[in-house]
Amino acid sequence: MKLIDGKQVAAQVIEECKQEIAQLKEQGIAPGLAVVLVGDDPASKVYVGSKVRKCAELGLHSEKIELPADATHEEVLAVVERLNADEKIHGILVQSPPPPQIDEDAIVRAIDPAKDVDGFHPVNVAKLALEDATGFVPCTPAGCMRLLKEAGIETSGAEAVVIGRSMIVGKPMALLLMGKDSNATVTVAHSRTKDLAEVCRRADIVVAAIGRPNFVTADMVKDGATVIDVGINRVEDASAPRGYRIVGDVDFDAVSPKCAAITPVPGGVGPMTIAMLISNTIKAAKLAQ
Amino acid sequence: MKLIDGKQVAAQVIEECKQEIAQLKEQGIAPGLAVVLVGDDPASKVYVGSKVRKCAELGLHSEKIELPADATHEEVLAVVERLNADEKIHGILVQSPPPPQIDEDAIVRAIDPAKDVDGFHPVNVAKLALEDATGFVPCTPAGCMRLLKEAGIETSGAEAVVIGRSMIVGKPMALLLMGKDSNATVTVAHSRTKDLAEVCRRADIVVAAIGRPNFVTADMVKDGATVIDVGINRVEDASAPRGYRIVGDVDFDAVSPKCAAITPVPGGVGPMTIAMLISNTIKAAKLAQ
Repeated sequence: MKLIDGKQVAAQVIEECKQEIAQLKEQGIAPGLAVVLVGDDPASKVYVGSKVRKCAELGLHSEKIELPADATHEEVLAVVERLNADEKIHGILVQSPPPPQIDEDAIVRAIDPAKDVDGFHPVNVAKLALEDATGFVPCTPAGCMRLLKEAGIETSGAEAVVIGRSMIVGKPMALLLMGKDSNATVTVAHSRTKDLAEVCRRADIVVAAIGRPNFVTADMVKDGATVIDVGINRVEDASAPRGYRIVGDVDFDAVSPKCAAITPVPGGVGPMTIAMLISNTIKAAKLAQ
Repeated sequence: MKLIDGKQVAAQVIEECKQEIAQLKEQGIAPGLAVVLVGDDPASKVYVGSKVRKCAELGLHSEKIELPADATHEEVLAVVERLNADEKIHGILVQSPPPPQIDEDAIVRAIDPAKDVDGFHPVNVAKLALEDATGFVPCTPAGCMRLLKEAGIETSGAEAVVIGRSMIVGKPMALLLMGKDSNATVTVAHSRTKDLAEVCRRADIVVAAIGRPNFVTADMVKDGATVIDVGINRVEDASAPRGYRIVGDVDFDAVSPKCAAITPVPGGVGPMTIAMLISNTIKAAKLAQ
């Protein structure tokens, strides 16, 4: 069994980004990322903090815009519009989820698609479906694809089962895997799938993105399959320093012995997300020239 | 075995359309469709002719714009822009394929998404992926979904295999089937799929959209499956009046005895396409109010 080391692959992506940043610097171009945080959700604060820190570490221009929890929809919109017009900013990210008075879909649609480094704007959703390489692929599925590639997993002709049909992970992952760059035979399974275990057992590649701790059990995975675990779930654990620990959607201990390759949680897909965000920001800066 | 009669279902859709047209008329609204034909491809002429005839039959305002085969891209673009601005026109369709000097993708992107009754504009592609009901679903997959519904085929929890991954049929069909309105477990198979027969044999619902005559054979279909045949292929036949006949992607004679339900070719999916086009045009006229 091969452990797919997301930290290592992410470090490699970051290294490539550093080189690209240096090259762009020679041309007088400094990629810039703006991260908008509305309210004070502790998890969102942590995510935003690590994104901004990573930018600083790479010498990437970044801006953190914090709005109070009672900010109006119009105030958030005004920030997005200012950032759309700001030539120093190539990527804009509004941390999800915003407070309930904010219409998140409308905010996403207000972001200039050319700066939508999260890849959630309809224009980028369409480009993904149309296999138009000028679009931005959402960071998590982009990271999963990169992990498969670095682990040397053949996707062409492979049977892939994606569990979950969200627009954040499941659907884009399915579109990427079935596209002409990957050529996998893709099944999208979800909460309404009958005999999910049987469907999953067909897969050479399982992508688990359901958001339920330890959902994928050993009987759902065939011998020699590759498993990509997108889940990040907190489970109570009195023995853990914070009273909880992070587990994936896959029962790692039971499933991993059967696998040809598997991503751990943490240390698998997770570290890839920020790396792909940085990579998308550099792409946006290049396309803006 | 139940023969899914596309002519009958299409007639029913047209009947609904008539009622909606009458209701809109009372409100002073006359839905209008513009069909743009560039060049003199005989098949395209036939398609455009039957679309315009159907509009006339329904008392729907329609406009046929014919451009010569050597029309420039800019000339086609100018026609689209004029139609975008024309309040009497709610749906715009540029017959595919245009001559090679025309950039078809750019023409599609130039159509106002609110008038894109073909459902090929990126905005509508995204709406389909995002399950946003204000978008336009491409006519052929929309017709297939309606046939399944009218035939009483349960999609929820069913295993569906879509053969073909085009943006005209395969991908939108997969997105429709996996969406929350249908809840099927969907596999997209294609030219690179290994052991396609085995993959297809899993399916409760097979949608064939490969464009190869009689491609789906009896060994690829499980007993009791429903088969939707999207193919329209000409095969030479000296005994036929025109020297050819139209066959689907499915070997009907061999496959149909195994099926719970199947669409014939001709008379299955084909008649649905114009009906869904009319239906989309009415929807566009309503949304424009």
